[in-house]
Amino acid sequence: MNFSIIRYILFRVLEFASVFLALPCLVAVIYHEKAGFAFAAVMIGGLIVAELGKLWKPKSKVFYAREGFVAVSLSWVVLSIVGALPFFISGEIPNFTDALFETISGLTTTGASCLPDVECLSKSVQFWRLFTHWIGGMGVLVLIIAILPLSGGYNMHLMRAESPGPTVGKLVPKVQTTAKILYSIYIVITVIMVILLKAAGMSLYDSIVLSFSTLGTGGFGILNSSAGSYTTTVQIILTVFMILGGLNFNVYYLLVVARKPTEALFHEEARVYLMLILGEALLITFNIVGYYDSIGLAFKDAIFQVASLASSTGFSTTNFDLWPEFSKAVLIFAMVVGACAGSTGGGFKVSRFMILLQDMKNEFLRVTHPQIVKKPHLEGRAVDDSTVRSVQSYLTIYLAVCVVSFILLSLDKFDSTTNVTAVLATVNNTGPGLHSVGPACNFGGFSFFSKFVLMFDMLTGRLELLPMMILFSSRTWKRY
Amino acid sequence: MNFSIIRYILFRVLEFASVFLALPCLVAVIYHEKAGFAFAAVMIGGLIVAELGKLWKPKSKVFYAREGFVAVSLSWVVLSIVGALPFFISGEIPNFTDALFETISGLTTTGASCLPDVECLSKSVQFWRLFTHWIGGMGVLVLIIAILPLSGGYNMHLMRAESPGPTVGKLVPKVQTTAKILYSIYIVITVIMVILLKAAGMSLYDSIVLSFSTLGTGGFGILNSSAGSYTTTVQIILTVFMILGGLNFNVYYLLVVARKPTEALFHEEARVYLMLILGEALLITFNIVGYYDSIGLAFKDAIFQVASLASSTGFSTTNFDLWPEFSKAVLIFAMVVGACAGSTGGGFKVSRFMILLQDMKNEFLRVTHPQIVKKPHLEGRAVDDSTVRSVQSYLTIYLAVCVVSFILLSLDKFDSTTNVTAVLATVNNTGPGLHSVGPACNFGGFSFFSKFVLMFDMLTGRLELLPMMILFSSRTWKRY
Repeated sequence: MNFSIIRYILFRVLEFASVFLALPCLVAVIYHEKAGFAFAAVMIGGLIVAELGKLWKPKSKVFYAREGFVAVSLSWVVLSIVGALPFFISGEIPNFTDALFETISGLTTTGASCLPDVECLSKSVQFWRLFTHWIGGMGVLVLIIAILPLSGGYNMHLMRAESPGPTVGKLVPKVQTTAKILYSIYIVITVIMVILLKAAGMSLYDSIVLSFSTLGTGGFGILNSSAGSYTTTVQIILTVFMILGGLNFNVYYLLVVARKPTEALFHEEARVYLMLILGEALLITFNIVGYYDSIGLAFKDAIFQVASLASSTGFSTTNFDLWPEFSKAVLIFAMVVGACAGSTGGGFKVSRFMILLQDMKNEFLRVTHPQIVKKPHLEGRAVDDSTVRSVQSYLTIYLAVCVVSFILLSLDKFDSTTNVTAVLATVNNTGPGLHSVGPACNFGGFSFFSKFVLMFDMLTGRLELLPMMILFSSRTWKRY
Repeated sequence: MNFSIIRYILFRVLEFASVFLALPCLVAVIYHEKAGFAFAAVMIGGLIVAELGKLWKPKSKVFYAREGFVAVSLSWVVLSIVGALPFFISGEIPNFTDALFETISGLTTTGASCLPDVECLSKSVQFWRLFTHWIGGMGVLVLIIAILPLSGGYNMHLMRAESPGPTVGKLVPKVQTTAKILYSIYIVITVIMVILLKAAGMSLYDSIVLSFSTLGTGGFGILNSSAGSYTTTVQIILTVFMILGGLNFNVYYLLVVARKPTEALFHEEARVYLMLILGEALLITFNIVGYYDSIGLAFKDAIFQVASLASSTGFSTTNFDLWPEFSKAVLIFAMVVGACAGSTGGGFKVSRFMILLQDMKNEFLRVTHPQIVKKPHLEGRAVDDSTVRSVQSYLTIYLAVCVVSFILLSLDKFDSTTNVTAVLATVNNTGPGLHSVGPACNFGGFSFFSKFVLMFDMLTGRLELLPMMILFSSRTWKRY
């Protein structure tokens, strides 16, 4: 492992993280909040360390996939710690574990919170909390690549390790251009959402931070009621933009940049993602209609909740933990399948789900009609064997992480439904689970140990398993 | 599909099933029970139909893997229906769905029961109930092959479809000889167990039926308290023989027939299976020791329960649903991993688990060190890619069955823990789950629809997914 280059990248990440803190500083200045000093202190401290560290040039420029994985996973750890400091220093989250949990939950776009009351937070802290969703959604290293590419051919390795999905979606041959296009699309959609929320009667501040949280498919809210007390118009805007955040950004690229609307329209993963959301929402509507005055109201809540969990956002308009078991089972299914690859959303990813479903069908053929050779197809192309295989291994690792986390969480004081859904809600970066981690509750009751397990799960889920787990391999820590 | 040969095999299976019924008839004669008439009636009726049906010779002898799968899955359906009839006709299980559930649960060695009181059953009905475990454990078609091989080369296809494990363990080149060896070993171990139980003070009848249930890794008991009211000696005998039933029969073959004790001792799957049981039992012991007077008593209950669930038997000496969450999580893990391939036990199988674990490790290598090529190993040999792949597909199908069953069961009135563990307890052919299907409860409360889902799960689990699922493929029902 070439540690010197990783060290160098970590100082670059620290530099960036510090610069980001200027934004909540600005918010603190506008609202005259003393939390601004905490942000300023961390920003200045971080910048000094980063600038000094950057003078320590890497000895070697060797950079392979493994360096990419380690660099990305450690970058996220650095980001999380730096991001947590202002919460802690400002005293608004007095427990550092909780501050770290909140930051990791933010950056990984999980939205699981340890805080029983989020309405007492200052505007600047609230801004930072929801901004972490936005920046973590698209990826911090993707942003660094977009703005300040590191020289050498290692952009691709970083992007591969940070971008979600079974294959890396390079939109254009150049990695830096891809990163720029992705962030441009992201910013444009965010601005549109801010305008719509403002037009629906929200304050500018609320519109901005809520857009961060929605499009990053995060789920941190600014009200204790999550999205329950918003008007129907706002809830509909949230529903639409949660779904958009979980859509494969290739679709926007094809639609707006490449101007290929038919290709965008026939994007298979996007279609399956949308069909799944619609189907799940209908199933739930029929199941819960008895609790509502009209089928329309039932559908509104059903599609909001499905969109929220499928896109891995985690907002709620109602306490779905009180819904019948069938609806909850469908919601858990939606949560696990998750959003599209190449989106800001989490979960197992629709494209992986599609590949596995096709491979399952093919397994029947392989056994009963060995002469027929069929491969899974995605976006009109055959998926090569190595991708199918890595998707299958992904499933194994995903399950292993879930099972081990579940067993470890069982040492805590909660029931099995709480433990299972807490693991699923963090590994899939969704946010709320059921029972004691349901939409009306929070993660604050877990022990210190359980919180660390869940933090690991959030990072592992966001970075798609391998980068985080590779930190535990002894091979990783060998020098060349 | 060559339907005529499948039809012919089904009549052969019906013939066998009818002959088996002579055994409970004999028991009824000994104990002067009128349930004997029900057995006799079904036996005679079955024999007449079977003999007439066998006159209808198959048009073609074409027999491929797909015919093997369909023949095996339909054979099990026929067996289940024929086996359920005496329960129903004798009036001892007055509801036919429950009678069918009980028979499928028996044949698949699940041991999940719909009956709140098993002590009121007559001796002959009880005998038949527990005998289905024994015959289903090793496989009915394996027995037919052992006694009366069908001419032609299709023994292998039948055995492959009925035998558990990622690869078919032919002990010797000839399939019929393999089947004979397997049943001989099975009978010898059963006789040893009967002698030990008799020596421990049990009646001959109890010793025999309990040996059937234990070595078939079934789990039907003859007392409402399952194994809770037996003496410590009997509980220890049960523990040992449950473990032996879940052991790969290759070990016995190597030990006794091939006389290669070192190879038997170093059988990797068997070692991992035993290590897992010991490790899980120790974890649980430390977790529950506070509830017991001594660590020894805690260990006795812990290892009994782990052996019971890991071997997929399902006996209980205590209501483990009252244990702490951690112990229950470990038990569920033991249940899912299950027993060895080539045993009478169920579950995902230890060898599959080992292959996936190794493949997971290799996936890290594939990504970070692409130049290193490593394959999973089992019993000292590299596992070929197609086997790894089919194990991975097995996992996908396994999960798909579990998820769909869970969602369907959620339509019933129980909580999610009940539903999840009911699915796992049936797919893995274990028996008891948690909450409303815990060791102190039974499956009788489920709706008609849920019971059918669970019956399907039991058959699917026993026949290792593909044979049952293939019945739902339209391709299966096409003639050549």
